[in-house]
Amino acid sequence: MAPTQNMADMVRARDRSSVDPARLQVLLWGGEEVLQSKQRIASLLSNDPAFDKSQKPYLTRIELYHRALAMTKRLYELKDQHGWSEEETHLAVHHLLGEPLPMTLHGVAFEPVVRSQGSPELKQELEELITNRGILGCYLQTELGHGTNVSALETTATYLSDTQEFEIHSPTLTSSKWWVGALGKTATHGVVQARLILPGGQDMGPHLFFVQLRSLEDHRVMPGITIGDIGPKAVGGYAPVDNGYARFDHVRVPRKCMLSAFAAVTPEGKYVQPPHAKLSYAGMMYIRSTMVISGGWTIAKGITIAIRYATVRRQGGKGADGLEHQVLTYPSLYYRLLPALARAYVFILLGRNLSSAFSAMLARLAAGDTSLLAEMHATTSGLKVLVTSVAIEDLETARRSMGGHGFSAFAGVGSIYADYLPAATYEGDNYVLDQQVVRAALKAYDALVVQENRPVVDLTPSTAYLRHLVAGTQDASASFSSQLGSWYDPKTSVSILERRAAAMVADRAQHAKEPDASSDQRVARAVSDAFVAAQVEELVRGTDNILGGREATVLKKLYLLASCSGAVHLLTAVEHGLSDILSCDLLPGHEGRANRARDLRMAVKRVCEDILPEAIGLTDGFGFTDWELDSALGRHDGNAYEELWNKTQSEPLNMAEVTEGYEEYIKPLLVRGHRLAGRSKL
Amino acid sequence: MAPTQNMADMVRARDRSSVDPARLQVLLWGGEEVLQSKQRIASLLSNDPAFDKSQKPYLTRIELYHRALAMTKRLYELKDQHGWSEEETHLAVHHLLGEPLPMTLHGVAFEPVVRSQGSPELKQELEELITNRGILGCYLQTELGHGTNVSALETTATYLSDTQEFEIHSPTLTSSKWWVGALGKTATHGVVQARLILPGGQDMGPHLFFVQLRSLEDHRVMPGITIGDIGPKAVGGYAPVDNGYARFDHVRVPRKCMLSAFAAVTPEGKYVQPPHAKLSYAGMMYIRSTMVISGGWTIAKGITIAIRYATVRRQGGKGADGLEHQVLTYPSLYYRLLPALARAYVFILLGRNLSSAFSAMLARLAAGDTSLLAEMHATTSGLKVLVTSVAIEDLETARRSMGGHGFSAFAGVGSIYADYLPAATYEGDNYVLDQQVVRAALKAYDALVVQENRPVVDLTPSTAYLRHLVAGTQDASASFSSQLGSWYDPKTSVSILERRAAAMVADRAQHAKEPDASSDQRVARAVSDAFVAAQVEELVRGTDNILGGREATVLKKLYLLASCSGAVHLLTAVEHGLSDILSCDLLPGHEGRANRARDLRMAVKRVCEDILPEAIGLTDGFGFTDWELDSALGRHDGNAYEELWNKTQSEPLNMAEVTEGYEEYIKPLLVRGHRLAGRSKL
Repeated sequence: MAPTQNMADMVRARDRSSVDPARLQVLLWGGEEVLQSKQRIASLLSNDPAFDKSQKPYLTRIELYHRALAMTKRLYELKDQHGWSEEETHLAVHHLLGEPLPMTLHGVAFEPVVRSQGSPELKQELEELITNRGILGCYLQTELGHGTNVSALETTATYLSDTQEFEIHSPTLTSSKWWVGALGKTATHGVVQARLILPGGQDMGPHLFFVQLRSLEDHRVMPGITIGDIGPKAVGGYAPVDNGYARFDHVRVPRKCMLSAFAAVTPEGKYVQPPHAKLSYAGMMYIRSTMVISGGWTIAKGITIAIRYATVRRQGGKGADGLEHQVLTYPSLYYRLLPALARAYVFILLGRNLSSAFSAMLARLAAGDTSLLAEMHATTSGLKVLVTSVAIEDLETARRSMGGHGFSAFAGVGSIYADYLPAATYEGDNYVLDQQVVRAALKAYDALVVQENRPVVDLTPSTAYLRHLVAGTQDASASFSSQLGSWYDPKTSVSILERRAAAMVADRAQHAKEPDASSDQRVARAVSDAFVAAQVEELVRGTDNILGGREATVLKKLYLLASCSGAVHLLTAVEHGLSDILSCDLLPGHEGRANRARDLRMAVKRVCEDILPEAIGLTDGFGFTDWELDSALGRHDGNAYEELWNKTQSEPLNMAEVTEGYEEYIKPLLVRGHRLAGRSKL
Repeated sequence: MAPTQNMADMVRARDRSSVDPARLQVLLWGGEEVLQSKQRIASLLSNDPAFDKSQKPYLTRIELYHRALAMTKRLYELKDQHGWSEEETHLAVHHLLGEPLPMTLHGVAFEPVVRSQGSPELKQELEELITNRGILGCYLQTELGHGTNVSALETTATYLSDTQEFEIHSPTLTSSKWWVGALGKTATHGVVQARLILPGGQDMGPHLFFVQLRSLEDHRVMPGITIGDIGPKAVGGYAPVDNGYARFDHVRVPRKCMLSAFAAVTPEGKYVQPPHAKLSYAGMMYIRSTMVISGGWTIAKGITIAIRYATVRRQGGKGADGLEHQVLTYPSLYYRLLPALARAYVFILLGRNLSSAFSAMLARLAAGDTSLLAEMHATTSGLKVLVTSVAIEDLETARRSMGGHGFSAFAGVGSIYADYLPAATYEGDNYVLDQQVVRAALKAYDALVVQENRPVVDLTPSTAYLRHLVAGTQDASASFSSQLGSWYDPKTSVSILERRAAAMVADRAQHAKEPDASSDQRVARAVSDAFVAAQVEELVRGTDNILGGREATVLKKLYLLASCSGAVHLLTAVEHGLSDILSCDLLPGHEGRANRARDLRMAVKRVCEDILPEAIGLTDGFGFTDWELDSALGRHDGNAYEELWNKTQSEPLNMAEVTEGYEEYIKPLLVRGHRLAGRSKL
């Protein structure tokens, strides 16, 4: 078969790209070893019928649920057969499969929370079972009537000192646990967030309790518990997962079932204080910390599909070759796609650093050192909001950039979007988390500027931008404009974004009594943008070390590209915040404000143009297989239109030339119409 | 049963509201008579089992397609039974049902295009059949390889003068017609957009041809044509519609099948010129014109659901009544929802005016007068982009405002979003339409400012903002700042939005050689914002007349609210465009830019606070029944949580306590885990 024009365009785009995707893959995957595991496992999965995706669009929710169970079972067979390590299994389940499974929450929420907060006794009993999925767990926090406001959860766990048991109870309909992944039909056990009530009636607020939900004999629901699935989700997202509800009717569990590594109840019913108020939120902080890297990979998928299709799609005026232009060459297209590509790189690399930092914090926490907790809380809250909000936008940008075809399920972005969408509201509603970011910023501002009781050198990474507010520091000493270089120097953007954050936090402190209605969102975004900007400078510097210095040419190109990507990211972050930046008079330049804004926008355009020939190489740098992307328009070989045609051939509606509904519905309509039109026969 | 807290909250909110929803319904529906039709038909449909929505979330695409056919058949039975007028039928099919049907495109695209562009001979033959659905039509424009760039469509219609026929042909895979609603399995006939090739080989570009697709005997596909469904759509949208593809293999149709009201081919094969180049786009212009009002009603649905749930949902700190606050009282919530509510009112009322203007233009077009065509093209293009972009955003804002529960299918916003989403790319991709808005604006700018050959008084409504650029006119004479009143006067926002548009068009003209990459989008938005702002002033003025002057109190309240809604709309439109407004130094005030921006934001907050007690009354003003909204969280009585619980009881996964998949998938996993953990038995 002769290659199509689409395929020829893709070959040419690859030829034009000067980067080596293999090198980029090592960088993005964090080393040769992980990359090889990834490639090996992805190849295994993509060739195993259990993981075939071709029928997915035609399955009902029950069928999708069963398919997810079948995939889960098969994953552990493969693990045993190929001797995957825990890391490799995690890679397969949580990353390569790219589809939500009921079991996902076992590894993400249930397992870490028991491990980090269970008492030694409970862990001793459960650890092996949990690790090996001998029990399947879920994490029951959200209730029908309460989500983000954890402190108002209604479920109670009343301590009965005579039997040394806790009695778990759902006093109202609204106290039903709700949205809990794997609870509906799968999980055998769960960790329940419930208000601890001491024998004297004292309400100690939410604590965690380990509860058996289903019998290990026959999987029936345990006495006193009512369990079900909460029904289908919006836009078809998360269909294979049995998010469930549960009500407890005075269900008793032994004292050891309280996760009491940090807060405990003595046999007599006395409460032992936790060393830090935020300790019980560490589980959610862990999940939030992983959402930076997963957000990056999510954008990566969507943007790879969009850039590939924009490379092979031709539309509009004709070029010198007599063909219409590739749409990726249109400014309105590359201006949308390339910054998203840059964000994917930034979030993946930033997310890896964050995971390391989280592990370090956890180690110190285990030793009783809570000093890093507040900083980690502020950082993960801010980044969770930023990354999930931006990733959802970027996915829709990718989908819409494909024009009408982007609305086909076969384009592949729609299902990624549908599964990713709840990230904006789960693990802390983004609007609520914004408040916490602002609160942390105001606290730091107060200590540094108002109380002056904290030296600038003690500023944490998440509050470093505040140094711009302190007179006498290097950054504040010179006049702002004279310090700023060209837009092509990342430092310019970093400096502006940090100053915007500082000015907005100061302004917010000034209007603390009555902020405007969107202040939380704008201030939180400014703070997170400043943090990410500073981190991008670090990331660019770190690239050399991660890749090693062996192949100088590739390294330099990578450095340049990473730097350009970073610059695009920073510049567009500045543009996003332009209204506040202008409000604060922070934009450099001398010829009137309109020209300054134009300078910035033209710089964004130039950097995009520089990266344009590398776009395909950079997306190849993510290393996605066609199986992973599952997209007709995002095929590696570019053969988009033929594949779109081929995919339609499996649509069930196409199995019969005349639809089943003809005799019953269509024909009577036509007969009626003919009759009314005065025609005797069809 | 005692009323729940949710229900009590809803009763109290209704009590607090001072507007009469019935009056608002008359305004929004355009009169008592239409409103009564609406209520009568909605009541009929909601009580007819054919239109039951309870099983919808659980149906496959084929089942949804059959359900749609069944509903269509039933609709025409009801029409015959109750003697609905054409208008009432249109109301039922295109509005009240609120679900896309295969047949929708017959009425929206096929019927109008044959009616407006068919030759008298063809119309004579078809009109009665089309009106009565004796044939079912579709509109075949988009191809696999070409969408928005209509001039590059590949399908050909070659005139053969010996037989006086056109030969319709698809020369390539990419020339396959694609995305055509009702083509896949339903339509019997279609209007095909194809390049007219004259006998000499001259290519006259795209023209329209009437083609029979399926036999009226047995519904089989006509010889030489290949037809199929293009498969499922993203995020489950448009599932019941059989968007299809078609390939033509030298299919012949008689000469009369060319839609030749404006451009024709003589029997000898000579081309007769159309009087206006844009004539053949009138069909698409009609669809675009209807998208303003439908966008308004779409926002109305989403925002009604969100505001109702925000009224009964309590979360966060406790108030004087000992209950947590209603979330609608949080600034970050009402700031998102109330402006969207205002936009729903504005787009519905503005859309009704646009439809009247379109009818007027069509009447003049029929008389050969094309003078209104260019203005209508510019207006409908700009408004299509603005309304669809904003409506998609507002739906997602509404969904996300509901927190985690917004991601439940039972929340009801997800399916509205999924079905509405393609509006951003169909009927002209929004990014491409932006270019046309900018082109029209630059043309008007050139005539007025550069060539000075057009007097200010001749400016059309879509270019009226340009008067600010002409010296000596009233608006430009006084200094800008001194003219501006308070933010509480709508004129302030209108003036700023018009000046922004004027300044940005002038700036764009200045940088015509190299605009920045997002210039088209920003300039088009500025132009459309200015147009809508001026229209809002008109709408507010017109409210008195539409409602009649009988009930002064209600009228005044309505006027105040409409004015407030308009003001919120205008103010937030200003805020949306703040970066460009600041760039152009257009924001009034004297105390530094930050304070001026704060003044505006505080004004938005104040206006929102004024409207807040009326929010439920204003949403009741849309007159939606529970059947129309199909939302557990948006119930009229507010009983959100009980309804959410009730809905879950029909989820198929809940029909068995132990899932089918237990023995096959879950049990083996548990056994394996126990074995690896060294436990002998489960």
